[in-house]
Amino acid sequence: MSLKLHGISMSTCSKRVGIILHEKRIPFTLVPVDFASGQHKSPEHLKIQPFGQVPILEDDGFFLFESRAISKYLATKYAALGTPGLVPDFKDLKAAAKFEQASSVESFDFEAVASPILVDGFFAKFKNPAHIPDQAFINKQAETLEGKLDGYERILTKQKYLAGDNITVVDLFHLPHATLLPAVLGKDLLDNEKRPHVAKWWKELQARPSWAAVKDGVNSTERYD
Amino acid sequence: MSLKLHGISMSTCSKRVGIILHEKRIPFTLVPVDFASGQHKSPEHLKIQPFGQVPILEDDGFFLFESRAISKYLATKYAALGTPGLVPDFKDLKAAAKFEQASSVESFDFEAVASPILVDGFFAKFKNPAHIPDQAFINKQAETLEGKLDGYERILTKQKYLAGDNITVVDLFHLPHATLLPAVLGKDLLDNEKRPHVAKWWKELQARPSWAAVKDGVNSTERYD
Repeated sequence: MSLKLHGISMSTCSKRVGIILHEKRIPFTLVPVDFASGQHKSPEHLKIQPFGQVPILEDDGFFLFESRAISKYLATKYAALGTPGLVPDFKDLKAAAKFEQASSVESFDFEAVASPILVDGFFAKFKNPAHIPDQAFINKQAETLEGKLDGYERILTKQKYLAGDNITVVDLFHLPHATLLPAVLGKDLLDNEKRPHVAKWWKELQARPSWAAVKDGVNSTERYD
Repeated sequence: MSLKLHGISMSTCSKRVGIILHEKRIPFTLVPVDFASGQHKSPEHLKIQPFGQVPILEDDGFFLFESRAISKYLATKYAALGTPGLVPDFKDLKAAAKFEQASSVESFDFEAVASPILVDGFFAKFKNPAHIPDQAFINKQAETLEGKLDGYERILTKQKYLAGDNITVVDLFHLPHATLLPAVLGKDLLDNEKRPHVAKWWKELQARPSWAAVKDGVNSTERYD
């Protein structure tokens, strides 16, 4: 029985899970959620996602929300498929701890800083075409992000990926939002010669076939050839 | 050999780990980091915390940063001590997935919304006593937080805690920041009769002896009587 991903083809959080589905070569059916008609705030949807968001995974009666939790679940359950080692062996206490450390870095040193830039500078205009971004706020967030990327450079000078020398879901989690930043900031802060290790890491992530498969929209995938 | 926590007695993130150390009854030594002299931005500190933050755990030569990662590591390593079940059995794939889901809820539906309120409304004045909070921004964030707490109510109507019917580190992670919100907002959004399950959960968390032990500052603890 095929996995179902309740989501939106162009949603960045649906793409985050889409990347992992493609890395692990897991067939799935995208079940569209109709935001235009308010389906995401309906009682039926709130039963499976209490915050009225997407995506939600449906795996033979088991429902799970939050894109990062879904990704980690899939990478654990399908450890033997596709790209190996996207999550650590949780019996290895120190490897699991370094993975959790990297997860928090992505959440609080990247996403928490980058997301407000995108909310005001990119997503707001879709809800309200007359929205004028707060440039002073965006500049301040971008400056904070530069400082955070200096921390990323310190990490990636010592190891190839955020959790160690193996690529994990945490590295891939950056793709949906970091690729949108240049549209707001006019330049790609992650691709800067003053942080050569970050730039190399970032170029490699963008070249993954999994990103090519979902960046223009997540679609149901019956099989991988 | 005693664990070392490199941190600051009054730092909210150091308190987050302090709660877990007390719940698990783990002796530890607080090693103060001197922010006043800029120690957190020194080359020595950046080697163990690439973003120049606190806290950092030192466990017999193993260094780990990020308060949530440290907390999960300690709750896993010392599963047999103190409060049981603060992290799930990671061999139980679905229980682990529900725990990850709850972790993301805390990170993105609570922390990402609450933290900007505290940064502008509470912490900024310590760096710059002349800082005037942006009340319009704070009001907008508070409105978003109210919507998120409606999601919390939907979860806690169905189960006792965020990851299921057992308290986990994720519930406890709310304490350091959520207890500061009333000082900015003039009321406690988490203690509201229109969300009775959230209010009950929140009162119970604040009554934990572990919170009483660290709320006025984290201190080295040689033993638990």
